Amino acid sequence: MLRFEIEIDTKIIREGFYKTKHVEHKGVVDLVTETDKACEDLIFNHLKEHFPSHKFIGEETTAASGNFELTDEPTWIVDPLDGTTNFVHGFPFVCVSIGLTIGKKPTVGVVYNPIIDELFTAIEGKGAFFNGKPIKVSSQSELVKALLATEAGTKRDKLTVDATTGRINSLLFKVRSLRMCGSCALNLCGVACGRLDLFYEHEFGGPWDVAGGAVIVKEAGGFVFDPSGSELDLTARRVAATNAHLKDAFIKALNESE
Amino acid sequence: MLRFEIEIDTKIIREGFYKTKHVEHKGVVDLVTETDKACEDLIFNHLKEHFPSHKFIGEETTAASGNFELTDEPTWIVDPLDGTTNFVHGFPFVCVSIGLTIGKKPTVGVVYNPIIDELFTAIEGKGAFFNGKPIKVSSQSELVKALLATEAGTKRDKLTVDATTGRINSLLFKVRSLRMCGSCALNLCGVACGRLDLFYEHEFGGPWDVAGGAVIVKEAGGFVFDPSGSELDLTARRVAATNAHLKDAFIKALNESE
Repeated sequence: MLRFEIEIDTKIIREGFYKTKHVEHKGVVDLVTETDKACEDLIFNHLKEHFPSHKFIGEETTAASGNFELTDEPTWIVDPLDGTTNFVHGFPFVCVSIGLTIGKKPTVGVVYNPIIDELFTAIEGKGAFFNGKPIKVSSQSELVKALLATEAGTKRDKLTVDATTGRINSLLFKVRSLRMCGSCALNLCGVACGRLDLFYEHEFGGPWDVAGGAVIVKEAGGFVFDPSGSELDLTARRVAATNAHLKDAFIKALNESE
Repeated sequence: MLRFEIEIDTKIIREGFYKTKHVEHKGVVDLVTETDKACEDLIFNHLKEHFPSHKFIGEETTAASGNFELTDEPTWIVDPLDGTTNFVHGFPFVCVSIGLTIGKKPTVGVVYNPIIDELFTAIEGKGAFFNGKPIKVSSQSELVKALLATEAGTKRDKLTVDATTGRINSLLFKVRSLRMCGSCALNLCGVACGRLDLFYEHEFGGPWDVAGGAVIVKEAGGFVFDPSGSELDLTARRVAATNAHLKDAFIKALNESE
């Protein structure tokens, strides 16, 4: 059922993705908003048909209304287009992210990159899958051999940029290398399938960036938490993820980078 | 002819790529070296059959012999596996890079990512192509809207890391966002097809990382140069690339970041 819906979204995102190069910038912004909105409507309409009593939080709906409320009710949290900058530039790391929380806990996750056709899924207690095959987080246990991902974010005030590059400076001495690919949800899936060993991000858009990926990481045997080491707060716009072997060393390194 | 050879390489890299997760670390290092060497042999043997009088520079051959000499003779410069860290971690940004220089000038370029099946090609004066379709660099003219790529490199001494993050800090105030994906050759192709607007890197492996991508960027209407703004020196292990509109502003920003 979800799979069918996602096949529809694919077409919209793909078409938009290949169109961006051929419109003026004002047009690009409209195209992104249109693609975002069209995807969110499709997903919500479909889900509401099947789960009329559930709650819904979407990036676009929230952007329009200015706020959202996460309750204990079953809630579908949707980012119809994660990786907006990539979408605008035609960089092939974009995705649809869908998460279901029950009692505020991520329980179902679906993240799909329609450009390179990569589908990550998980249901609590049932394992995590990449294009239908079971996945596990990496078995890396040494920070110095670990591949780290983060993002530069969108804020450009001096305090934020200095904090961002200060963390990168501190962490680069401790890990093998760094990736920045522009999608929080795909970074979480990268940890889930072991492509990445470590990921953290501060000040991303909202719970829609992590609700889907969080359960995928956990079901792949990994951990998702606040960069301080405390429990993940879906509404805090801060996240870190890794495997069991690296968790303590990563939290220590993250704290030392502040 | 080249296309046929690359189809063989694909198989070797793909097989190695999906194997890395299942071998011990020492085994991974061997697998990378084996995959690298096997690809380089395949490419060189094929090229030597067709161009027995040409010179050849390969990453693996150079690693074994300790040096190389770039002359004015027609010279095939090959990186059989660019993005080694990605290969080891299963991160899908790896490629084969093949360049032909004549009079030290990049004249033919082929860069192929066998994991997501993206082929970039160019011959001097004949245009640049992505999976057979003509490509152009982006038309972006404002630095503040530009997507920048760079890499963290492999050196971890304080001087290098501080210089790396210092540049990133300075540039983040001026551009839209930053990508770090782990392959110099694919970053050049990203600029060539307009996914990226700006790219620079210091201290990468050698001329095999840029010889293929340089001609692809130029044939797509872009510029490849030293980050200082001076002419590209294939042996200097420093490169920058962008479109005509951003070139001057990018060089100024790069100089200000030092």
